[in-house]
Parts: sequence; C-alpha cells; structure tokens
Amino acid sequence: MDRHMNGQTTVEELMNPEKGSPGAGEDMEAAESFIQQAMEIILQEAVKKATNVKEKVCEWRSPEQLKELLDLELKDTGESESKILQCCRDTIRYSVKTGHPRFFNQLFAGMEPHSMVASFITEAIKTSLYTYEMAPVFTLIEDALLKTMMKLIGWEEGGDGLFNPGGSMSNMYAVNLARYRYCPDFKEIGIYASPRLVILTSQEGHYSLAKAAALLGFGTKNVYVVPSDNRGKMIPSKLEEKIQLAKSEGAVPFFVNATAGTTVLGAFDPIDEIADICEKHNLWLHVDACWGGGALVSKKHRHLLKGIQRVNSVAWNLHKMLMATLQCSAFLVRDKSCLLQRCHCAGASYLFQQDKFYDVSYDTGDKSVQCSRKPDAFKFWLVWKAVGTRELEYRVDRALALARYLAQEIKKREGFRLVIEPEFANVCFWYIPPSLRNLPESLELWKKLHTVAPAVKERMMKSGSMMIGYQKHGDKPNFFRMVVISPQVSRQDLDFVLDEIHSLGKDL
Amino acid sequence: MDRHMNGQTTVEELMNPEKGSPGAGEDMEAAESFIQQAMEIILQEAVKKATNVKEKVCEWRSPEQLKELLDLELKDTGESESKILQCCRDTIRYSVKTGHPRFFNQLFAGMEPHSMVASFITEAIKTSLYTYEMAPVFTLIEDALLKTMMKLIGWEEGGDGLFNPGGSMSNMYAVNLARYRYCPDFKEIGIYASPRLVILTSQEGHYSLAKAAALLGFGTKNVYVVPSDNRGKMIPSKLEEKIQLAKSEGAVPFFVNATAGTTVLGAFDPIDEIADICEKHNLWLHVDACWGGGALVSKKHRHLLKGIQRVNSVAWNLHKMLMATLQCSAFLVRDKSCLLQRCHCAGASYLFQQDKFYDVSYDTGDKSVQCSRKPDAFKFWLVWKAVGTRELEYRVDRALALARYLAQEIKKREGFRLVIEPEFANVCFWYIPPSLRNLPESLELWKKLHTVAPAVKERMMKSGSMMIGYQKHGDKPNFFRMVVISPQVSRQDLDFVLDEIHSLGKDL
Repeated sequence: MDRHMNGQTTVEELMNPEKGSPGAGEDMEAAESFIQQAMEIILQEAVKKATNVKEKVCEWRSPEQLKELLDLELKDTGESESKILQCCRDTIRYSVKTGHPRFFNQLFAGMEPHSMVASFITEAIKTSLYTYEMAPVFTLIEDALLKTMMKLIGWEEGGDGLFNPGGSMSNMYAVNLARYRYCPDFKEIGIYASPRLVILTSQEGHYSLAKAAALLGFGTKNVYVVPSDNRGKMIPSKLEEKIQLAKSEGAVPFFVNATAGTTVLGAFDPIDEIADICEKHNLWLHVDACWGGGALVSKKHRHLLKGIQRVNSVAWNLHKMLMATLQCSAFLVRDKSCLLQRCHCAGASYLFQQDKFYDVSYDTGDKSVQCSRKPDAFKFWLVWKAVGTRELEYRVDRALALARYLAQEIKKREGFRLVIEPEFANVCFWYIPPSLRNLPESLELWKKLHTVAPAVKERMMKSGSMMIGYQKHGDKPNFFRMVVISPQVSRQDLDFVLDEIHSLGKDL
Repeated sequence: MDRHMNGQTTVEELMNPEKGSPGAGEDMEAAESFIQQAMEIILQEAVKKATNVKEKVCEWRSPEQLKELLDLELKDTGESESKILQCCRDTIRYSVKTGHPRFFNQLFAGMEPHSMVASFITEAIKTSLYTYEMAPVFTLIEDALLKTMMKLIGWEEGGDGLFNPGGSMSNMYAVNLARYRYCPDFKEIGIYASPRLVILTSQEGHYSLAKAAALLGFGTKNVYVVPSDNRGKMIPSKLEEKIQLAKSEGAVPFFVNATAGTTVLGAFDPIDEIADICEKHNLWLHVDACWGGGALVSKKHRHLLKGIQRVNSVAWNLHKMLMATLQCSAFLVRDKSCLLQRCHCAGASYLFQQDKFYDVSYDTGDKSVQCSRKPDAFKFWLVWKAVGTRELEYRVDRALALARYLAQEIKKREGFRLVIEPEFANVCFWYIPPSLRNLPESLELWKKLHTVAPAVKERMMKSGSMMIGYQKHGDKPNFFRMVVISPQVSRQDLDFVLDEIHSLGKDL
C-alpha cells in the first residue's frame, strides 16, 4: 500500500507538465477488490454470525486485554491488505452483537436488514442534507417520512421537522424552539435580560433535558422536576403546583417535557391532562417519545400516547422500538410558520445561495444547528417501504406481547420479582438468589439484593450468553431492565434469560 | 414480505403456550440474501460506477420530476424485494456522486475505500459509544486516534476529546467548555446573573460560531467579528481592538475562535500572534481546523498552523481533507482536568453505573451532550492503519500541488481570473465569458459577472459533467470555489474543468 516505494507519481512529477498524473484506474481496482472482500466479512461475521443464537452476544475482554489483542498504534507506513481485513474481523469479533436475539441491554436491539442496507447506501453515497442540490433523493425522502410520521401523530395540518443525531439533540431543539417562540429577540441578544426561565419535566424524564438546560444557558437548577406516581407517570396536579411555584418566585415557566416511554420503567405520562395544563398557562408542550413513539403504529397500543396530536413538538427515535440502525431520530414540530428555520438559520451565503435555479425551499440545512447533517431518514423510509405499516404494527404488538409473557413467567418463578407491571416493552425485575429468599424485607435485604444484579451482569458478560441492563432507581436497589424489541426474539429466548440468570446467580 | 398472509405466528398464537414462536431462521436467510444482493448493487453502482470518470457526477432532476420518478409514499403493505432493490438503485442513481473525480462542490470529496468499509462495519455493528461495555473496540480506537492527533497538534502532555456529529458541534463544545472554565456555576444556575459574555471570531470564520452563540444563550450580537486582511486572515491588532471594545462596554470577552482553513478562501489565521493576545487577556483560544487540520500531516504544509500546540481546543474534521466518510469530526481539548466530563456530565444512573466490574473511566458517554453517539473514529483509524502517515502526507501534498497547478492554469487562460492566490486547496476564480472580456472594470461589469457562475452552475448540474460550488463573498460578485482533495483527481480532470466551464458559459 506504500505508493512511495512502487514508482507512482510524486508531487514533484505531478507539477512537471511533461509527465502526466497516473489516473486512478489501478488504485480503483484494488479499492473495489478490498471493499468486496470486506463486504463478505461483514456479511459472514457482522450479519450471519452476529445474529445466530448459537453464537455469543459478546466476547468480553477487559480494556487491558483488548489493547493487547488489537494493534491500535498508528504508524508512518501502512499495513498489508490481509492485516487490515484481519483488523475488520477483530473489530467485529470483540464488538457487542446488538442484533443478537439475546441482546436486551439498551432501548435498541435486533437487526433490520432493510435499515442496514439503507445505512450502507448512505455511507457509500457520502453526502449531507444541507441542500437539495447535494442530496436530492434524501431531501425528498426525509420530507416524505416526516409527513407520514406527522399523520400517525395526528397533525392533520402537517408541520415541520428534521432528523437529528440522537434524541438528546431533538429534546434540545424543542427547548430552543420554545425559547425562541417566547422571545425571538433572544437569538440576537441572548438571555441576559430575561427573567429566569423554567423547564418542567418529570422525575422519570430523560437526563437530556438537564443537559439541554446547562448547554442552552438556563442552568440545571432551572429544570423543575415534577413528581411521578408509582407507575412512573408524571402527576398532573404536581405539574400545576410546580408551575405555580415558579411563577410565585418571579420565574417564567415556558416549556414542559412529557415522556412517552420512560427510560427505565417504560412509563407514559398522561399527555391529555398535561396538555390541558399547558394550554391554560400557554406553555410549550414537548413529548419525548424517543422510546415510546413506536406505539403509534399499533392500533392496540397507540392509546398510550393519547393526546399527542395536541402537543407542540415530538422527539421520536426510529432506531429504538422500530429497529432502524443508529441513529434515526426525528424531531417534529407542529408549527407551520417556519419556526425551525427562523430559530436556527444563519443564512451562510456560500451554501444557501438564493440565486439558485431551483426552489431553494428544498434546502433544509439552515433548519439545523449542524452544518453537515446525515441522511438518516432513509434508514427507516426503506424499512417502511419494504414491510409496510401492518408489519411495523405486528412487530410492536409482538414485542409488547413478549414483554407480557416475560412478566407472567417472572411472576410464576420462584426467586424472581417484578418491580412493576409492564406497560410497554420494559420488564423490570429482581432476581433473588436462594440465600436471600427467606430473609425478612429489611434494609439489610435490600442492601444485599443491590449487589446481585451487578454480580450476575459481570458473569453474564464474561460468559457472553446474553446482555441485560440493570440500575438502581430512586430508592429501589439494583434491578434488571429487560427490553424486548426485535421480532427475531422468541419465547424460548426469554425462558433462556430467566434460566440463565438463575444459573449465573444461584450461589450468590 | 407480508407475514400476515403466509401463516406465520400471530401475536395471539404467541401468547398461547401450546404454540411455539417461529424462531428467526427462515427470516434470517431471506434477510441475508437481501443484504447480499444489495451489497452487490452498492459495489456496482455506488462504488464502481460512482467513481468512474466516464460516468456523470449527478443526474439532475428537479424536485417535481424526482417525486414523479420515485414512489415515495409509505403504505400499509410492503413492497416486493425486487421493488426494494430497485429503490436502492434509484436512490444511488439520482444521488450526487461525491466520490467522482469531478466532484469539487464541497470541502469533502473522493472515495476512501478503507473509510467506506469502516463505515459499513459501524453500521452493521450498530452500537453507541456511551459505555465500554457497549463499545469496547470503538472506545479504545477513539482513544488511540485522538492521542495520535494530539501528537500531531503538538500537545506533548496529551489532552482529552471525543468525536462529534460534525464540526459545528465541535465548535459549540469549545464555546461551552470555555464558558464552564470561566464560571463552573453557570452549569447549575445559568447565565442570567453573568456579565455579557463575548465570543470573538473573524469575518471569515464559520457560521457555526453564530449558531452556537444563539443556542447557548449568548445571542448572535455577542459574537464580535474581527476584520480579516485581503488574504482572509484575522488581523491580530483588530482582535486586540475588539477585546478592548468589549471590555470598555463592561462585557467579558472569554473565547476566541481562530480558523485554520476558512470555508471560502482557505485562509489560515495567524495562530501564534492570536495566542499571544489570548494569553495576555486569559481568553480561551479555540482553532476551527475542521478544514485545514489535514495540513498537520504534511511536513511541507504544517507551518500553516504554526502555534496550534498553544491553543486550548481544536476542531478537526477528518472527513474533509483526509477523506473519511461523513461524519468524522474530532474535538480535542488540551485540558487534563476532566473539564469535558465535568462540563457535560449528568451522571445518569441507568447508564453510568458506578458499581460495574471494570474501570468505568473507559465509559466516555458523559463527556458528550448526546446520549447515543456513533463510533465515527473507526472510520479514520482504519484508513490511517491501512495507508500510514506517509501516504496521508502524500495525499495532502498532492492535493495542494494540484490546487497550485489549477491556479497556474487559470492565470494562463484567457477569460479566467483568480480571486486570490491559493494558500490551501481552495481555488477561487471568476470565469469571464467573451461578451464581458472587453468591458471596463465597473459596477456594471461586476453586476453582469455576478450572474455568470449561477448560470454556468445550472448548466453544469443539468449536464452532470462536474460539480463546483460558487458564492458571492464580501463585496465580490459570485465566483467559483474549486476544492481539490482526492488523490483520484488528475491534472486532466482539472484541465477538463476549465475547458468545460468555458464550453458551458462562452455564450453568456
């Protein structure tokens, strides 16, 4: 791979008009051959093997071990093609197989072949969504997908939106739009002269609201945390109280985040009741439906988001419940007065020329705080096109049915205990090893129980048999959070999970 | 693709313990076959054809035409596999071929086979960088690449950093870190009680600084614009003046952005002189080297960034001059006191458990304002591993030599005029059609010339022969900005560009 050794054109030769430059023919043939070989490795290792239930979910190595195994150092000279192909194999081998039917560790899982292919295409095409000129197909596809999503939300009049690199960004966009609506002058003069602005979200809401508050200059203390009930749902009367509190302090509450599918419990805030309160106080209502938005495709489960058609904005990650590859995060806003564009535009003349020969309203880049922005919408548009809404519905219904099956099994089995009856795809439970089963409920028991999930997790990772997340939550000691998403998961996989936890933890 | 028709398990059956669930075997075979077919299409259409100089750079269709050609609507039922594969072909066909040797429209171009393969792997692996547990290989690779980049910058003591979805985000991170250093309390209490904070950048600096100022609550008016000289470089004495001005107004200048490689002219601000001023006033100095950072790999050209080892932070997009696939944007900070983590952390207990069985300092997710974050570093680590630093250097030297060749040709040819002698890979020039060649230099001539580039651009897009950007700039009428990056470009391609511009525009 070292062209300096094999007589190719040097820069000096290049500048000598008597000598031509090489043309890329030979290099391109080598490149194509390399890509083809790598594609075969990806297909075998990262698709077939990575989704095979008989293979491991992960091949755990500590950071120190992995550094030994991988030759990470970057050098003056390159490596041979065979060494690089081996790097590709090793990278796949020691990475976590999130498409494996026994991966339940995050709010994403499974392998969606159409989305994977769409991802490959967006990578091969290597473009950015700033202008129609640079991304004609992807611009129209983003628009088509956003419009279809808005119909599912129930915005009869449509709206606006874009795809962001993750749901945290979408939640941040919502806060920024709400601030801009409250006072457009802030964009120019900043918030120095503003009264203290208050963001409201529930105790179960995602941490990205706190990150947004810090980044946008509000400060995390100006996120007022509204208590949730024992199902994890925001209590509307408590929201009203917090709004009154902020007002009594002379602050200005301006933004409410409701969550449709909380991270740990999978709870849905009561959007309709929250919308009543927001209307009364003229507050921007955003729904973080990053996780729970998928329920909108299901006639059986869309009631979980009842009232969502009333809200100002929605964040909805298609890479979670609907299995797009990472990232595929839509931000949707009901406004039709170009609020998104007005709030974020900088009008860079080198990019957004106004004297173009086509309708520049198709140039969507200035709606974003990013400059280059990836065509993530294609990663789900192709899925939807390929399988149709009914199959999406089936998948969601199947995932939620499997979650209920798992909850039933947990209730049946000795040594397992549900934290809460699942409303969505999160199944939260404790495993109680035999040594703790006959102890009275006490602080002592909770303390001991708190160490069980981390210990089982360590053994699970080291055996590579499955991956499940755990966390402490409020005053509750560490418990497992299983998340069921992929239609490639079977009831047998769930039975295996419970058997395996017992097998890994029974001596604790 | 409609499983509801072909007797597969329904949700009702699934919940009936007498009936098993299908297992994913049959589906997986179909999925693998689909992926394999799509890979072949990608190889033929998005790699081979898309980089073939005999093929078109783009096949222009207006939004209306393209909507007709593509069946964008998403329906209840899915489409056949052959239709979906045709969607893939059409998506590639009507997308811009940024890897084509005659694509010069943006600050990225060319096809880097190792980066493309690395991108495919990251998509297939589908993970996020929040924790070591979820991304062991990619976590170590990001760290190794950042450290190597820091060495090139000249930070002997190392530093910290992460990869972001684009350079605008990296510039925003720099502003936020500088604010946090100035007053850590702002993270909690917001900036309401703060004196007015002022950001300084040059008139040629990227618009992302203005976007950051708006988003972070400072307001765009608090970006003080420092004049540049006629080469596009920030004038240090003017920076000093603006700092004094802000202070005299009772404001607090706290952040200076210097640009290494401006967007339009490719100019480099004098970092050393700016660093002197920043040290004197204790200001955070950030270098936006998104575009020009590539020069650091070249012994011949790294002098352009002289002094960069003195700055507080650097944004450097490897997807620009160094040809990684989009996006591959590093943000590097010289601080070694965990400023990045302290500034951005929220400590979500469901993700960043502190009772894990491995060293949780490898969990990098809380350094980010994102939650899920893509393993973009791999897209360049694999390139560097495969070709070595010397080949990277050769590529940069070659691109800059080609830019100089093009500038020489422009000076030789009648009807072409350089806007400025190129310092980097941007070659800015006017094409003056014969009808305008004998007119005296006047406002009238400039007005007419202003319409030439957009008219040539329209014809170029419609013929699909090449793509070059244009813009007005300051008081200068529209001119072309050619950007030479890819080693797949030959001198003949540059000769073609000038011939073709004349051929397209000679009747104007």
